[in-house]
Order: sequence, then C-alpha cells, then structure tokens
Amino acid sequence: MVDATLASTMKFAILGTGTVGTTIANKLLALGHDVMLGSRTKDNAKALEWHKGSAASGRAHVGTFADAAAFGEVVFNCTLGSATIEALSLAGAGNLEGKVLIDTSNPLDFSKGMPPSLFTSSEDSLGERVQKAFASARVVKAFNTMSAPLMVEPQQLADGQHDAFICGNDAAAKEQVQSLLRSFGWKHIIDLGDITAARATEHYLPLWLRLWGACKTHMFSVHVVRS
Amino acid sequence: MVDATLASTMKFAILGTGTVGTTIANKLLALGHDVMLGSRTKDNAKALEWHKGSAASGRAHVGTFADAAAFGEVVFNCTLGSATIEALSLAGAGNLEGKVLIDTSNPLDFSKGMPPSLFTSSEDSLGERVQKAFASARVVKAFNTMSAPLMVEPQQLADGQHDAFICGNDAAAKEQVQSLLRSFGWKHIIDLGDITAARATEHYLPLWLRLWGACKTHMFSVHVVRS
Repeated sequence: MVDATLASTMKFAILGTGTVGTTIANKLLALGHDVMLGSRTKDNAKALEWHKGSAASGRAHVGTFADAAAFGEVVFNCTLGSATIEALSLAGAGNLEGKVLIDTSNPLDFSKGMPPSLFTSSEDSLGERVQKAFASARVVKAFNTMSAPLMVEPQQLADGQHDAFICGNDAAAKEQVQSLLRSFGWKHIIDLGDITAARATEHYLPLWLRLWGACKTHMFSVHVVRS
Repeated sequence: MVDATLASTMKFAILGTGTVGTTIANKLLALGHDVMLGSRTKDNAKALEWHKGSAASGRAHVGTFADAAAFGEVVFNCTLGSATIEALSLAGAGNLEGKVLIDTSNPLDFSKGMPPSLFTSSEDSLGERVQKAFASARVVKAFNTMSAPLMVEPQQLADGQHDAFICGNDAAAKEQVQSLLRSFGWKHIIDLGDITAARATEHYLPLWLRLWGACKTHMFSVHVVRS
C-alpha cells in the first residue's frame, strides 16, 4: 500500500530502457501506477518490446525522453551514468521543473575494461552534477546500491533485512521517495543527508562490484547493524 | 584460540600510536602475544603512556618504526594514510621483507575539512601503493572498514553478525590474517581478491563516514546478506 505522502496512483516517467528502467517500470505498473518509458527515439526497440509485454495493463506508454518527462509527476533517471546529463538535457529542464527526480545512476567508466572505474572524484558525484544542471528539479539519489531485482522486491533477500540509502536537498521529496521505497517493500531506509552524500553511495560501487565477484551472485545487499 | 596457521604466541609490530594502533596492540597482548609499538621516535609520549599501562603484561615494548618492524614477525600499519609510505620507509624495506604486513590505513585527506576526501582515484589505492613500494612484504589490506573497538571485539555488535573484508596477493598471508581475525572474534570474513580490491574497501570510506553521521555512533558495521 502506498502511504499518505504518495497518491495511490501517479504518473511516472522512466528515462532509460535497460534492466533497471524496465524492472522499475514493471513494478510501478504492478502497483497500479501509469508509466511512460522514455528513450532517445520514439521507436526504440527495447521500449517497444517492453510496451508490447505491458500493453494489457492499459497504463504503459512509450515516448521520447521529453515525452516521458512531460508525462511523469515523478521522474526516474535510469540511464547509464555516462549518458545521464545528456539524457536529462533531452528530457528538458522545463519538463523536470519542481518534480521529484530519482537518480539511480552511477558514474561508472567502462572504457578501460572491467571492473569499471568511477569518472568522479570523492569531492564530486553524479547526483550533485544532476542537481546542479537541473536546479529546479528535486533530486533524490536512490536505488544505486543494489541489483535491479532487489530494488523492487527487497523481501526476496533475508526477508528484507538489508538497507536502501537515499539523499537529497529537498526533505519533502525524500519523504515521497521513502514512501515509494516502502511501497516496493523496503523496511530499512537510511537518509544520508543532502545531495553531497551521493559521493558516498556512488563510491560504494567499487565495493559492490567486488562483492558481486566474491558472492558469485548479484542477489546480495548490505545491512547496516548498529548498537 | 588462535588456530593452526598462526603460532599460539607471536611477535607483532604495531606501527602507529593512535587509537587503532593501541587498540590492536592491547588485543594482541590480551591474547598472549608479544607486541612492540613503533613510532617516529623512541620517546613518543603516546607510546610511553601505552607502555606504562601495559607493562604488567611483560610483553609490551616500544621503539622506533624500524625497531618495531625488526621485532615483529607480523607487522600492522596503523598510521594515518597520509603518513603511511613515509612511516613504512622509516620502518625499512629490509625489516618488512617476507613478512605479513597488515595495512589498516585509509587514503583520507583531511586538509579540506570534514568529511575528508580520498587522495586516491578509483584506479588506485593505498594498499597497492604499499605493496608496490615494499614489494617483498606480503601486504594484506584489512581492518580499514570499521571503528577500532569493533576491529578487536566484533561480537560487541549484533552478536558478530557483520563482515570484515580482506584482500592481498599472497594466499598464505591472507590465511594468517583470517586466523588472526577469527582469534579476535570475527565470524564473517570476505576475501575480495588481490590487492587491487583495496580500491573497493578504501572507497567505502565515504559511505562509512556518512553512516557514522546517520547512525550517530561509530558502533555500526555492515553485514553482507546474500541468497
């Protein structure tokens, strides 16, 4: 059940047609929301395939980045980190104005092979770059520290005893994202502070990648235990 | 109880007289080992204070970095990241040759205020710099992802249901460090691979620092949950 700070059904934009985008899109449809999947072109093959599979819902739509951002009351950035600023520029600052913009991206640089490095320093983050470039959007960094299946079904693992991290400058926007996370099944959500905390969750990615290797599965997550 | 791959009593060098160094030194004394705390000068005030408090054991010693490294069969680097290479140079490559060198340091740069940034990129780590500079030492990165009290008494928190991470190029050295961790009470130890994985655990520090703020205590740690 979606709690009070989120309307029971809302319009969501998902920018990006990869696994993260379609996984979140499907979860939102399952919860009764309307979803537009946005990509660079209207005839993106992955978007059309997703739309075909989701047509029965009557609430699945496809369009350009700009179409989707105009459609959504809340916007998810699910593009690759290296494409994020450009994709959001195509979405259009005007279409993002005043909206909660959930940034799931990571500043991964795959150009030098595996494991990828980060294209940000520890004094910078993609979350901050997004907030700076789209100053009137209410950016919340979230969903960037676990694999796609766990993002939307956290209770699959350890009965949900693991943690989601959020950060952002807008307290009301973070409350909405917390509500959304709870509607996905998240029990443990840690608010790390303002958008500069994106440095922290993005810099966790090198450890996430090594743990992926050590665990031999992407179905793992971390639980913060405290006294 | 220390298991088969570690002798029941051994000689340890601790380089660095801060909280991490003295906390580990006291734990090693409590387990019956001999310990020399090394610092830049023989008359370091913190080292002498520690020695006074530990004299009853008959197994506590102080000396220069070089004295300690010569004394220890296993060497702990517990100096600040910014001082690590210089401290190890003073310890002397010859005194480190063939020895297990446990590197607990983090590449934190406090010069621009709090929170500290990292002075390494995601394609580099202090662990690798140490291994490269002291090629005949058997470097194992460990103990750099939790607060000092938890390093030596992990069962204080959540009955020890949280994780220590190690990495290094020498399998036998990592086995010795795993034995040592178990003798300290660690139940969950994840081997992340070769020394390049130090990039991962060192890059976790920005998240550790934000979690410290969010948890309002340093008595927290992370547990990796997996399917």
